[in-house]
Amino acid sequence: MAVTLKDVAQMAGVSRSAVSRTFTDGASVSDKTRKKVEKAARELGYSPSFIARSLATNRTKLIGLVANNFQNPIFLEVFDLYTQALQEKGLRPLLVNLTNETDPEHSAQMLRQYRVDGVIVATSTLPPEFAVAFKKADVPVVHAFGRFNPAHHVHVVGIDNQAGGRMAAQTLIDHGYKSVGFLGGPKFATSTQDREQGFCQHLLENGVQIADVRYADAYAYQAGRRAMHELLDEKKVDAIFCGDDLICIGAMDEAWSKGLSIPQDIGFIGFNDMPMASWGAYNLTTIRQPTRDIIKSSIELVVSMVESPDRALETRLFPCEVVERGTLRPLPV
Amino acid sequence: MAVTLKDVAQMAGVSRSAVSRTFTDGASVSDKTRKKVEKAARELGYSPSFIARSLATNRTKLIGLVANNFQNPIFLEVFDLYTQALQEKGLRPLLVNLTNETDPEHSAQMLRQYRVDGVIVATSTLPPEFAVAFKKADVPVVHAFGRFNPAHHVHVVGIDNQAGGRMAAQTLIDHGYKSVGFLGGPKFATSTQDREQGFCQHLLENGVQIADVRYADAYAYQAGRRAMHELLDEKKVDAIFCGDDLICIGAMDEAWSKGLSIPQDIGFIGFNDMPMASWGAYNLTTIRQPTRDIIKSSIELVVSMVESPDRALETRLFPCEVVERGTLRPLPV
Repeated sequence: MAVTLKDVAQMAGVSRSAVSRTFTDGASVSDKTRKKVEKAARELGYSPSFIARSLATNRTKLIGLVANNFQNPIFLEVFDLYTQALQEKGLRPLLVNLTNETDPEHSAQMLRQYRVDGVIVATSTLPPEFAVAFKKADVPVVHAFGRFNPAHHVHVVGIDNQAGGRMAAQTLIDHGYKSVGFLGGPKFATSTQDREQGFCQHLLENGVQIADVRYADAYAYQAGRRAMHELLDEKKVDAIFCGDDLICIGAMDEAWSKGLSIPQDIGFIGFNDMPMASWGAYNLTTIRQPTRDIIKSSIELVVSMVESPDRALETRLFPCEVVERGTLRPLPV
Repeated sequence: MAVTLKDVAQMAGVSRSAVSRTFTDGASVSDKTRKKVEKAARELGYSPSFIARSLATNRTKLIGLVANNFQNPIFLEVFDLYTQALQEKGLRPLLVNLTNETDPEHSAQMLRQYRVDGVIVATSTLPPEFAVAFKKADVPVVHAFGRFNPAHHVHVVGIDNQAGGRMAAQTLIDHGYKSVGFLGGPKFATSTQDREQGFCQHLLENGVQIADVRYADAYAYQAGRRAMHELLDEKKVDAIFCGDDLICIGAMDEAWSKGLSIPQDIGFIGFNDMPMASWGAYNLTTIRQPTRDIIKSSIELVVSMVESPDRALETRLFPCEVVERGTLRPLPV
C-alpha cells in the first residue's frame, strides 16, 4: 500500500496542508513543523512523487550549468555559488561539461535529453553557436561571462570587458609604466578580444607604448608560461597585462625562471582575482571580476525565463575593481 | 498533434529501430544515422519523453556527487572526470553542495526530493552519518575518499591513507630528516587520522623523532597558514608532512614570510598532487592520490548498484605514489 500525504499528516500530528507545504519548494513552514513532517515521512517511507509532478507540470526543476574549462580555479567559486543558490530555491543543479565539444547541435540534443528547465552557459570561450543552438532547442539560456550580440538574442550577464581592459591600462599608467605588453587568453574568446581592445585603446589615448600583443592558447597555467617564454625571447617590456590570473601566474613563474625580479624588472597585472592570486608567493595585483553577482543574477534571470519564456532580452553588466597587491612597482609619490 | 518516433523515422529515411537506438543511451548507431535522426528530430521538434520514461522505469538517470569543500582545487579534477564519465554513459551529473550542512536527515530528504538514482559522497570531512542516512533513505551510496567502517555498510573507494602516511614518513627518512612535524587537516577527518597514524607509526619504527603534531581547521590555504604560524612560534622542526597540498602551500607561504628558506631551513611534503603543487613558485614534493582511478571506479560501482542494489559490500583502494620536486633537501649520496 502506497503511503499518502494523509498518513504522514496523521503521524506527524499536523494538517495535510502543512505536509504539502513542507514538500513544496519556497512554501512557508515552521522549522518545528518541518522536522515533525520529515520525521514522519522518513518513518513511513514517504516522499513526494517528484517524477509524477514533473510529468504534470512538464518541469524537472533541473537547471544546467555549462562549463568548458575545469582547469580554471575561478570555476570552484562558480560551482559553489551556483549549487548553493539553486538548493536554496529547491532547484536541482546539473553540470554540463563541454570540454573538447565542437558540435553545438549534439550539445543541444544532450540538453534536451537531460530535460533541463533552463541553462546557464558560464564561459567566454565556447563559440556563440552553442547558446544559439540551446535557444533553438527551446531551452531558456543565460550566457554568463559572455558578450552581448544582438543577432543571437541571448540574455547576457557579466562584466564590460572593455572597461576592465581600460582599468588595467589606467592602473599601469598610474604606476608609471611606459612600455607595456598584452598577454591575452585565447584569441577567439570574446573576453580576450574585448579586454585587449579596451586596454590598447586606453593606452593609445594616453600616449603609452604597446610594446607587445600576444595570446595564450587557453586560460591555463602552462599556456601562460609558454607564451611568456616566447615573449621574453623576442621583446623587452616593463609590465604585462595578462588575460587572466592563471595565465599571469604561469607568466610570473616563467619570468622568475629566467632570473627576473617582480616587480623590480617587470610588473604584472592579472584578471579575475581567483583565490590563488592572493597566495603569498604570487601576491598578484589584479582586476576583480564580481563572480558572485554574475552567478546570482544569472540564476535569477534563468529562473524568471522558465516562468516567462518571452521575457524581454537583457544584458546585465557588473563593475570590476582593481585589487592592488605586490606585482607592480610602487605608485610614484 | 504530438510528433512520434515514426514521424522522425520517415523524415530521416531510417528505420524506427534506428531512431529508438539513437535515443537509447549506450545503444549502437552509426554517426551518419545519428546525425540524420537528430536533424529530423530537431526539425519536427521531437525529443524522447524522458520524464514519461522515468515514470515507467522509476529511474531518473541522475547521479549525485556530494561535496563539501569548494575551496579545494582537487575538486576541479573530480568535477571534470565525474561529469565527462557520466555524460559518456548517458547519465546526468547532479551536484550536491553540503558546505555548512550539519543535518544528515535533512540532506537525505533533499536527495530523495532530487530523485537521484545513486550518489557518490566525495569527501573525507563529512561525518559518516551522512552516507548512512542516504543509505537508509534507499539511495545507493559510494563513499569516495572515505574510510571503510564495517558498522556503516557503505561501499568505499579511495586510498589506504595509513599507507600514504607511511610513504610520506619514508620519504622524509630517505632525505635524512631527524626531527619532523605533522600538520594535518581537520582532526575529525578520517583522512587526517589515518595519515597521522601511518606517518607517526612509521617514524617511531625507524627511530625518527616526531617533534610536533597539530591540525589545521580545514583543508584550506588560510587554515594551513594559521597552523604554521603557531607551529613556528612554538617549535623547531626540520621538515613537515602536511595534511594536503593546499594546507602545505599555506604553510610554505607562512614560512617564507618569516624569512625561512625552503628546503634549506625547513622541508615540506604535501598530499594529493593538485595542479598548483607543480607551479614554479612552490614546486612541491607530495604524495599523489590517484583521483582519476577513484572517480572512475566510484562511478562504475554506483551504476552497478543501481542495477543490483544488493551487491556485496566492497572497499576498493588504489595505490599512491611519491612525486619528488623541490621542497625537500637533496637525497644523501
